[in-house]
Amino acid sequence: MSESPLPYVHGRSDRESIRLYDQASGLGLLLHEGTLYPPGSTVLEAGCGVGAQTILLAGNSPQAQFVSIDISPESLARAQERVLKAGYPNVTFLQADICSMKFPAETFDHVFVCFTLEHIHNPLVALENLMTVLRPGGTITVIEGDHGSAIFYPDTPDAHLVIDCLVILQRQSGGNALIGRELEHLLEESGFVDVYISPKQTYASQNVPHSSEAVKKIFIAMIEGVREQAIAAGLADPDAWDRGVRDLYRTTEKNGMFCYTFFKAVGVKPR
Amino acid sequence: MSESPLPYVHGRSDRESIRLYDQASGLGLLLHEGTLYPPGSTVLEAGCGVGAQTILLAGNSPQAQFVSIDISPESLARAQERVLKAGYPNVTFLQADICSMKFPAETFDHVFVCFTLEHIHNPLVALENLMTVLRPGGTITVIEGDHGSAIFYPDTPDAHLVIDCLVILQRQSGGNALIGRELEHLLEESGFVDVYISPKQTYASQNVPHSSEAVKKIFIAMIEGVREQAIAAGLADPDAWDRGVRDLYRTTEKNGMFCYTFFKAVGVKPR
Repeated sequence: MSESPLPYVHGRSDRESIRLYDQASGLGLLLHEGTLYPPGSTVLEAGCGVGAQTILLAGNSPQAQFVSIDISPESLARAQERVLKAGYPNVTFLQADICSMKFPAETFDHVFVCFTLEHIHNPLVALENLMTVLRPGGTITVIEGDHGSAIFYPDTPDAHLVIDCLVILQRQSGGNALIGRELEHLLEESGFVDVYISPKQTYASQNVPHSSEAVKKIFIAMIEGVREQAIAAGLADPDAWDRGVRDLYRTTEKNGMFCYTFFKAVGVKPR
Repeated sequence: MSESPLPYVHGRSDRESIRLYDQASGLGLLLHEGTLYPPGSTVLEAGCGVGAQTILLAGNSPQAQFVSIDISPESLARAQERVLKAGYPNVTFLQADICSMKFPAETFDHVFVCFTLEHIHNPLVALENLMTVLRPGGTITVIEGDHGSAIFYPDTPDAHLVIDCLVILQRQSGGNALIGRELEHLLEESGFVDVYISPKQTYASQNVPHSSEAVKKIFIAMIEGVREQAIAAGLADPDAWDRGVRDLYRTTEKNGMFCYTFFKAVGVKPR
């Protein structure tokens, strides 16, 4: 159903899979709050990746039916294995590209998209395609991060440098690591109505149990994943890179803090 | 009780007083949530300014007694007038400098500090003084912004320039407009225990009633207040400044958004 996968800025290594699972488990309560689908409804998860959100969707709405698509067959295989292991029977996996899906119009009652639009060259085209396969009155839920929301102490130029490297590399891959702030206008420009944004802010420090571990496993691991790309692209020299990553780790230690905001948007397809 | 006031980066004009009142009224619910003092307790408000928080404190805890101090006699006079007009009898005003207060040790049951540490050259000295006048087991509540938390769309370099101008001017005045992220380590280094930080994030857009008006009256008005200082200091030329301010206004219009985080910290004086 799709062409070969586009380059994925975070890579598809085992470590990246672990990162995505950690991300979903630690953030699940925060990000999925309020996302419950009625019994019998059919939900498209567009861009399921390795299934990190899929297991939360399927577990939170056990009587809804999910169709989870991804462009990468390898990711789909991992997602399927994960969901089977969790014992959820309500997910169907399918290889498909959000920008060229072949579902009939108005197939789905709801659409869920998480950490996917950030990797898509033209998110408006993706949203218009999702609008087409959604029934009138159905909802779309979009969750994305925004690396510009990272606030941390100690604050150093090198730490900003390594974050900026990921933002630039993602832009060079056709994505947008600062897309969280754009969800409202993207949904509105695509024609969704009743658009509502809930910022989901996380605050990590040694006074908040497990929070600093999450920053290391989720955010810093993601930054570390692009080290070679950033150096090869001439965006950072190895010493500055290593200082920046060390400085990020410093924010997870005594007297440090790290704050990050995810944006969750819900919109409705007009009747 | 104090020397002549230090320069205040935002100025003490009528427009600035209006801004501070708007700030308190619009943000009151968000920032004061959970800040209720028991009947009979004595609370020091350190740095009351023109009374924007004072009326919320006095109204929310009508049976607590407040002592509200400020370094500026003009601000105190405005605060007193405001509180009298609101009809609250439970506030005593006093001119004093946080860094050289003359209260006996352990005078107060609780201390409240809002938008004040950001203007103080050495916040650790201020916090140590506040610790001294607080009884063991009493709490300190500190609320501060952090201009590095501003996320907005459309995002432009000129908009960042004008925000950075205020950050630099405030630093030149001995303050710190990025102090929100530092509250946890400052309270811990001052010896407070059980330190807990609640980030208070605001999201403004045309889909959130009154929110864009608040961004204009509170944040953009504060930026506009340092125009002449910024240009005189050579931090921005007039054209770039005006473009930056126009770009900030653009974030309050159709399809724009503006997000800002205040940090609220509560700590306890060890018994």
